[in-house]
Amino acid sequence: MTTFKEFQAKYTPIINDFLEGQLAKESDDPRFAEIMAYSVMAGGKRLRPLLFLATLDALGVEITEKEVQAACGIELIHTYSLIHDDLPAMDNDDYRRGELTSHKKWGEAEAILAGDALQPLGIQWIAQAEHNWKLVEIITEAVGPKGMVAGQYLDIDTTNNEDSSEEVIDHMEWLKTGCLILASVQMATALAACPDQQAQKYLAFAKHFGRSYQLYDDLVDIVESQEEAGKATHKDQEVGKNNSLTMLGAEATRNELKQLIEKGKADLAGEKAEVLLGFLDLYQKVL
Amino acid sequence: MTTFKEFQAKYTPIINDFLEGQLAKESDDPRFAEIMAYSVMAGGKRLRPLLFLATLDALGVEITEKEVQAACGIELIHTYSLIHDDLPAMDNDDYRRGELTSHKKWGEAEAILAGDALQPLGIQWIAQAEHNWKLVEIITEAVGPKGMVAGQYLDIDTTNNEDSSEEVIDHMEWLKTGCLILASVQMATALAACPDQQAQKYLAFAKHFGRSYQLYDDLVDIVESQEEAGKATHKDQEVGKNNSLTMLGAEATRNELKQLIEKGKADLAGEKAEVLLGFLDLYQKVL
Repeated sequence: MTTFKEFQAKYTPIINDFLEGQLAKESDDPRFAEIMAYSVMAGGKRLRPLLFLATLDALGVEITEKEVQAACGIELIHTYSLIHDDLPAMDNDDYRRGELTSHKKWGEAEAILAGDALQPLGIQWIAQAEHNWKLVEIITEAVGPKGMVAGQYLDIDTTNNEDSSEEVIDHMEWLKTGCLILASVQMATALAACPDQQAQKYLAFAKHFGRSYQLYDDLVDIVESQEEAGKATHKDQEVGKNNSLTMLGAEATRNELKQLIEKGKADLAGEKAEVLLGFLDLYQKVL
Repeated sequence: MTTFKEFQAKYTPIINDFLEGQLAKESDDPRFAEIMAYSVMAGGKRLRPLLFLATLDALGVEITEKEVQAACGIELIHTYSLIHDDLPAMDNDDYRRGELTSHKKWGEAEAILAGDALQPLGIQWIAQAEHNWKLVEIITEAVGPKGMVAGQYLDIDTTNNEDSSEEVIDHMEWLKTGCLILASVQMATALAACPDQQAQKYLAFAKHFGRSYQLYDDLVDIVESQEEAGKATHKDQEVGKNNSLTMLGAEATRNELKQLIEKGKADLAGEKAEVLLGFLDLYQKVL
């Protein structure tokens, strides 16, 4: 039985190698290739591609290079969203993962264009890997105007808006983070073509995991020092940003996180999904 | 025999109705839907969707609502590129098609996000319309880091750079404008599944048309008054922007345009492509 840590240790370097090797071939302009690679290779946890691959694994789908390519497509799209979220017109962040953000390092136009390029390239990798339009439908719906972008729009809209209800904040956080996490699992269930009843278990898990991941991310913001997190922490409250944590407080957020972990475990009862369940252990450091 | 003008008169309102009706359903936030629709419905010529539909027509493919949806997907992607090109960090334009640009009207973050949303939504419409991953491959390659975005990157890189050779400028203009025009025709040949030899004729036409369209656009910049063009004209030279026209001069540009028109006609000799050939008549006003 593979554990989450073993799975992560095996596939993280495979994902990183694919990203680095393939990205270098995707532009005829060495500097533009460098700008894209700068943010993609800045050392993320590769959570979404690992989630996609771990779901495939649980469903008995063999992981070959094309599954790795599709997984990496998700990571490109995630990276685009980080680059654009950091822009001066958005969150105006100078650091990300301990390094200068794209616009601070390369310039604002360059950062906008790197994001604009990574989004369709990620979709292209997914389409070319699996020759399956359904995966394209899932990913584009997840990141489009009823998904991730809508979350970022609401985030801008709710900043410094004290009337924002807890419901609005929950919805905003779901769109910003949950949609792409859910899509990573949903793409795997679509590819595995598993029975609908079985797919529903994984989608339920993905929804609970997506929600819990946002709470975890908010808690990291207050628990870790700036150096550990590699970005500006304690910042959300300063700039008047509302999130579940600023609405509920740390204690209630931790309790909700614990409940979501239990729900996630229950969702996958009876499935051979030890690796997926291991994702929930990530949260130990904020509990 | 349908003429270009008849085809245009029939399908332009169909395209506009689809765009307006469908876009309103694509966001749960009325203001964000309005921001997207503002730029999409600002009155473009719908050149790319018409080119896609006219190629289908020439190849004997019946045009139903799903072909209109795929055509409109191309227009969403084109609109995203206009919104981002106008941003302060890029061309910093205040007007487009006679109206305030998106960031002047709604704010910079809003404009970035409207573009970020229209790009995947356009791809989604294409994927959902035809259930064909090949179309997704064609469109994502055309707008990604070896296509349209690379052109915009080169454009920023070459502005005020007097060393830029004519070759670099040609390449930049091809990427910025030609790639998406070629993709509009290529998606139609892929959908029609016509013999490769026949497809090659249409792709050759698309390449000549794509190149000629950029020359036309540069000539409009000096021929029309600002009021007629609906955007700032005579601007390229002022801001030190290199294009074929500033490199070659107006007379040589007109001559090249005339030659490209003849080549485009020759490409489609023997095909029932009267509507497509009619696109070349657009250029009369600058000749």
